Amino acid sequence: MTNPIKIVIAGPRGRMGREAVKMVTSQRHFQLVAVIDKENDGKQLSEVESEFQGVDCLIYTDIHTCLKHTEPDCLIDLTVPEAAFYHAKSALELNVRPVVGTTGISPDELEELKALANEKKLGCIIAPNFAIGAVLMMKFSQMAAKYFGDVEIIELHHDGKLDAPSGTAIKTAEMIHEYREPKQQGHPNETEKLTGARGAELYGMHIHSVRLPGLIAHQQVIFGAKGETLTIRHDSYDRSSFMTGVKVSVETVMKLDGYVYGLENILD
Amino acid sequence: MTNPIKIVIAGPRGRMGREAVKMVTSQRHFQLVAVIDKENDGKQLSEVESEFQGVDCLIYTDIHTCLKHTEPDCLIDLTVPEAAFYHAKSALELNVRPVVGTTGISPDELEELKALANEKKLGCIIAPNFAIGAVLMMKFSQMAAKYFGDVEIIELHHDGKLDAPSGTAIKTAEMIHEYREPKQQGHPNETEKLTGARGAELYGMHIHSVRLPGLIAHQQVIFGAKGETLTIRHDSYDRSSFMTGVKVSVETVMKLDGYVYGLENILD
Amino acid sequence: MTNPIKIVIAGPRGRMGREAVKMVTSQRHFQLVAVIDKENDGKQLSEVESEFQGVDCLIYTDIHTCLKHTEPDCLIDLTVPEAAFYHAKSALELNVRPVVGTTGISPDELEELKALANEKKLGCIIAPNFAIGAVLMMKFSQMAAKYFGDVEIIELHHDGKLDAPSGTAIKTAEMIHEYREPKQQGHPNETEKLTGARGAELYGMHIHSVRLPGLIAHQQVIFGAKGETLTIRHDSYDRSSFMTGVKVSVETVMKLDGYVYGLENILD
Amino acid sequence: MTNPIKIVIAGPRGRMGREAVKMVTSQRHFQLVAVIDKENDGKQLSEVESEFQGVDCLIYTDIHTCLKHTEPDCLIDLTVPEAAFYHAKSALELNVRPVVGTTGISPDELEELKALANEKKLGCIIAPNFAIGAVLMMKFSQMAAKYFGDVEIIELHHDGKLDAPSGTAIKTAEMIHEYREPKQQGHPNETEKLTGARGAELYGMHIHSVRLPGLIAHQQVIFGAKGETLTIRHDSYDRSSFMTGVKVSVETVMKLDGYVYGLENILD
Repeated sequence: MTNPIKIVIAGPRGRMGREAVKMVTSQRHFQLVAVIDKENDGKQLSEVESEFQGVDCLIYTDIHTCLKHTEPDCLIDLTVPEAAFYHAKSALELNVRPVVGTTGISPDELEELKALANEKKLGCIIAPNFAIGAVLMMKFSQMAAKYFGDVEIIELHHDGKLDAPSGTAIKTAEMIHEYREPKQQGHPNETEKLTGARGAELYGMHIHSVRLPGLIAHQQVIFGAKGETLTIRHDSYDRSSFMTGVKVSVETVMKLDGYVYGLENILD
Repeated sequence: MTNPIKIVIAGPRGRMGREAVKMVTSQRHFQLVAVIDKENDGKQLSEVESEFQGVDCLIYTDIHTCLKHTEPDCLIDLTVPEAAFYHAKSALELNVRPVVGTTGISPDELEELKALANEKKLGCIIAPNFAIGAVLMMKFSQMAAKYFGDVEIIELHHDGKLDAPSGTAIKTAEMIHEYREPKQQGHPNETEKLTGARGAELYGMHIHSVRLPGLIAHQQVIFGAKGETLTIRHDSYDRSSFMTGVKVSVETVMKLDGYVYGLENILD
Repeated sequence: MTNPIKIVIAGPRGRMGREAVKMVTSQRHFQLVAVIDKENDGKQLSEVESEFQGVDCLIYTDIHTCLKHTEPDCLIDLTVPEAAFYHAKSALELNVRPVVGTTGISPDELEELKALANEKKLGCIIAPNFAIGAVLMMKFSQMAAKYFGDVEIIELHHDGKLDAPSGTAIKTAEMIHEYREPKQQGHPNETEKLTGARGAELYGMHIHSVRLPGLIAHQQVIFGAKGETLTIRHDSYDRSSFMTGVKVSVETVMKLDGYVYGLENILD
Repeated sequence: MTNPIKIVIAGPRGRMGREAVKMVTSQRHFQLVAVIDKENDGKQLSEVESEFQGVDCLIYTDIHTCLKHTEPDCLIDLTVPEAAFYHAKSALELNVRPVVGTTGISPDELEELKALANEKKLGCIIAPNFAIGAVLMMKFSQMAAKYFGDVEIIELHHDGKLDAPSGTAIKTAEMIHEYREPKQQGHPNETEKLTGARGAELYGMHIHSVRLPGLIAHQQVIFGAKGETLTIRHDSYDRSSFMTGVKVSVETVMKLDGYVYGLENILD
């Protein structure tokens, strides 16, 4: 059997970080060798968080010390933008492959990470969205748009959400727009008896945002053609869903020899 | 066995009328005794329309002659507003119970039919929409609204439809509005990044209209509450779906002793 | 303004009980006057459970003492079958109306509660299932079955569920069976190329059970007729969904003058 | 502007053939130059079928004469297996690219067409299923199976369908099986309280077949993972839906330099 992939997680006590600790320690081919946190240097993670009883893993506050001592293959960073850039850069300099799930790193910093990863021929994945189901939904929508020019997007979220449409809906429309021929949908003479009925419009496509208590995060993309419809739907129930994406990213970053931005670019 | 219900159909060669002839002749407890049309008085329906080969049924152009000769229990009228009123009135006068599926009869005329039916204690059903599935969807939505105050409506139609939202969506919202406590839905601070994303608004409810080739006529009503959603969906694929409503109406009109407007008021 | 309904909750630290405490304390027309638990007699609930910080409510271990001191209008019982019967009986004897969500009370005991409630003309609701959305789904299915004789049930649950079909699916089929005319569905000559493809059969209806990680608890009931389908779907995401049912039950039990079993019998 | 693609259709009066005539004559970049039929040699198609009034197109009964006279780029064959092989072979010999939608050509004959097309470096597409939406559904399902190991298939058809599961459902399971790691789904201890509840099983996947009047031809493939589900659904309402597939095939066959079997192998 091959050796497990040795992993350090930065940000183990955040919402995503906690899930990552659980995911990594539940996989046989992964080994959690240390975590990086803002405090509790030198303590065991299990001492600090009763949730992680039985997990044998030291906390470091300094990334250089951590990576030099533990010599991991991969760093999973689920912290904040400022820390994430510094962590990813330090990892690459020490020949550790970063998988970064933090959003908000600046374009300049991303360029710097890209140059460094490509120069050192080291895998490096920056993924603002680890929901692999959502990424597949977008990718399939893009592919379908080559054959079906007519499409509408319905996204449905809990009623605590303030903005409409969702970022994922807009991203989906943009991805479809790259592939489909420009088209103004709907009947040229259609009229709204009630304003807004036909939803928002982006590149000739219509987007509808539903907000209800009980809902979590859902989207469906409907393609229509003579005599048929094709629907791609993603339902996200909680943040644990991101972990399939983190897992695939760790497996993939070990095979890459450079920088990749966006989960959609590592799926084939 | 009880005697079959004797039926005359007015408008047997229109889109709905054709379906009605097929439906009536396929039911053992119904008997088609004649049809009323604008021409071909005295001919057999099977002579005029090859589609009805084997159907033994005479065509009349005059309703009084027809009803006096054939003494039916029930008249199904699927013609145009002007004819429909005259047909229904003549039927009631001759003690025949009308089931009218024509839209567009004036309020005054409806009042006259109501008074006549109630006075003669004769069943009379005027149903502008015979799609029993759609009517149940509206009725269930109204009932659910007593317990779930948050609801959105999505209606989906082919892209040849000119108006949005559909009449059924507006009717559904109105029926819900009768039962639910007034409520402005969505987050008070929600904002549309793209105009129209949150759809049309009616009585604080949001309505979304999807238009795509391939689609026929569909509507879903989604209720949300903490931790759950309840969805009622109707898919209408073609006009033959109206015939279940016509069938139930004929069965029901025989038991009524007065006027009823709307299929929703004969369902329990 | 009318006085709030004074409520005692038995079992405040169970999964359902915790949600009930949150629900009751969040409603203006409800007032939580005490809780009944197995221990911590005389302490404040907020002392024992940090989750309920700010809730001013005394713990009793003896139900008689509790009900005599606090004179509530209603007792919500979310304990275990043995305790639930004793609690409900004691409540009725002291003129307090019980709302019981515990399953597993014996038929004899239920009879005794029924006799007592009806004799004292006191509202008493026993509801093995408080998911009002699920109950509405079943009720609507039953109503639709009067007009649509063809129906199939698809229930979808997480893959930790051991039994198939779910209890709700079986209950739904039984409720439909009460209303629809007996009917063997599907084509008389249909054959399964792979055994089990057509699902389980109950009273001539077909039931299909889907089990997948990610799913929570979902069911859809599909009715079909010529040219149309009508679908009723319930999605339950977590146990907080039961609280709408508890809330409606408390409101209703105050208006009843006798015993009711099953949430479906208090909805109209 | 480039010249239109010159097309001959064999079988213009069958169900699929009629749709093909309409599709080809409605596209600006296609030109219908002749049709091949069993009778009416030398007549105009519009003489024989009033449906095609205004279509200027000669009928041939002999394929060699037809192809030599009209020198088309492409032959669309929608006839029967025996004729289809002979037509496709004749077309290739005369340097015309065949698009064949007939099922039932024997493996030996397919091998012969493959050898001939590849030798002559001529595009040749044999597609037993032209429903491009269905093909995309299968292809996306296969792709998703690389990341989501848990999947169930629900197919829904009208109740006149005799076999269950549908051929498309079986094909989908086979395509998924090629890509996903072998896996027995569901809980190892799960039990059926009613036989058949968990559906049919193929390669560890479960397949459910719903049959109801009103339904036409629908399938949904549901993938589940921790915290999320991904659903791909195809709704086919009538045979006109096949024409998008025929159109894409004609466009593609002009760019190919050899034999391709199955629409899924020309989509990218």
